[in-house]
Amino acid sequence: MNILYKKVALIGLGLIASSIGHGLKKNSLCETIIGYAKTKQSRQKSLELDIVDEVSSSAAKAVVDADLVIISTPVGVMGDIAREISPFLKPGATVTDVGSVKENVISLIKPHLPASVHFIPGHPVAGTERSGPEAGFAELFNNRWCLLTPLENTDEQALKNLIEMWSMIGARVETMDPKHHDLVLAVTSHSPHLIAYTMVGVADDLRRVTNSEVVNYSAAGFRDFTRIAASDPTMWRDVFLHNKEATLEILGRFTEELFSLQRAIRKSDGDFLHNYFTRTREIRRGIVDAGQDTDSPDFGRQVASKETNKK
Amino acid sequence: MNILYKKVALIGLGLIASSIGHGLKKNSLCETIIGYAKTKQSRQKSLELDIVDEVSSSAAKAVVDADLVIISTPVGVMGDIAREISPFLKPGATVTDVGSVKENVISLIKPHLPASVHFIPGHPVAGTERSGPEAGFAELFNNRWCLLTPLENTDEQALKNLIEMWSMIGARVETMDPKHHDLVLAVTSHSPHLIAYTMVGVADDLRRVTNSEVVNYSAAGFRDFTRIAASDPTMWRDVFLHNKEATLEILGRFTEELFSLQRAIRKSDGDFLHNYFTRTREIRRGIVDAGQDTDSPDFGRQVASKETNKK
Repeated sequence: MNILYKKVALIGLGLIASSIGHGLKKNSLCETIIGYAKTKQSRQKSLELDIVDEVSSSAAKAVVDADLVIISTPVGVMGDIAREISPFLKPGATVTDVGSVKENVISLIKPHLPASVHFIPGHPVAGTERSGPEAGFAELFNNRWCLLTPLENTDEQALKNLIEMWSMIGARVETMDPKHHDLVLAVTSHSPHLIAYTMVGVADDLRRVTNSEVVNYSAAGFRDFTRIAASDPTMWRDVFLHNKEATLEILGRFTEELFSLQRAIRKSDGDFLHNYFTRTREIRRGIVDAGQDTDSPDFGRQVASKETNKK
Repeated sequence: MNILYKKVALIGLGLIASSIGHGLKKNSLCETIIGYAKTKQSRQKSLELDIVDEVSSSAAKAVVDADLVIISTPVGVMGDIAREISPFLKPGATVTDVGSVKENVISLIKPHLPASVHFIPGHPVAGTERSGPEAGFAELFNNRWCLLTPLENTDEQALKNLIEMWSMIGARVETMDPKHHDLVLAVTSHSPHLIAYTMVGVADDLRRVTNSEVVNYSAAGFRDFTRIAASDPTMWRDVFLHNKEATLEILGRFTEELFSLQRAIRKSDGDFLHNYFTRTREIRRGIVDAGQDTDSPDFGRQVASKETNKK
């Protein structure tokens, strides 16, 4: 037993919160977990799956007496949550969040919180395309990074405990400036998601013309895009609305690059294309070497061989 | 034993050809396979891996007496190959290819071939990001589609045999008009590849500024793009140069869509974004149901947990 927090409150019970719940329990890092989710269904499911020990039908009630409060709702409602829970927070408690955006989230949450609590914004860089409490699993954070963006004058012991908590459930922890976080994530996450959504949208339009061809012949590249374009719409709407500036900046650079490649195709500049494609090949090696993706071809995916009727 | 072709010549010994070789042998579909590749290393490797029974240092010599010739080189050299092998082809032989582009490839190959052979263009919609003879495996085509684009007056028996060959090594076969093929593949393969290359290129630029951050935090979406952007540069250069029109058309539609989403972000039009992301979520279900991707979260990828030093 290595109790870091006696009572933990999970506000929001989706993929990330439920994975934290499993991780806390597996490693016996707290005595009690109380959970709040907007829908009764999610609360029920979280109890059934033993992610939490009890549930509350309001966020305010859930945080009473909690030593650690983890806000894991979509970014867009975090401000409302902070306002609601604020009067009920235990003095000395740590409040953190798992939002994919940091600067804006800080400006939404911080003004509501009393000076008596330690607010340490965070973002575990992990996930799958699934959502809801049933999507969580204790190993989600293994070898993944959790970025904390502590504010000025953050209590050292509170920060140390939170780092310890994330480390114990598998993550590597790094601290970072919020603005810088938002730019880096615009590159590694937000822009790729928007681009995947866009490509799938284009194909979906064409699908209406050509029936199931887009689906049948997706193994040639397209299907990779559909995974991230299957991510939670509410979460992602909020990410884009709250990391507007950095995302639009990176998308601007993306469009510039895309135009230069389109121009090379139009002008049949094979050397330009070949050089470009050789350069991009190397970055994957770096990601595999850093333990951030599998080395197996095709992600090692195993596709069930099933009999499907020809159209 | 179910000998479809006595002697098969594989011209080019990369991922696709070597997978065909393994598939033919595993299913005993021919008596002899002879292989040709540009480099001695690839020829040697193909012998070692028992992909072929013998190798030839010229494409012309390899096709002598072959009943089936499969051209599996990058699309850009297929015309030269056709010109070279043409005088040595056995009358009545079937010549096919595996190029990802069909209309242009037909115009490159067809003029060189004698009327005495059956030319049936083809394209197995399968692959991984790996290249070379060591990348091939017999199961690559299992449950994947192979598109044939037969020309007018194609010999029925020759077509039947080729369909049988592809079916025996696991593929589902469909015939299609070459121009239509090129448009469908521009959506399901060529544009997604160019977009992935572009996004990785943008990140690579940024990596110079921010060191290894792009690599470390890639699990949030970006790493999916790096897989297809690790594909063979020569093959993909040729694909874009030879399917210029359809690719540029789809990229034009992509840019239009992307601008509409960028505009929604800039104007904070959350409803537009949410509706868009809900629509694209459905298409993945279709792909999984059609047996073209795994249902496991995160492609079921298993990332080795390794100790990597913090930067």
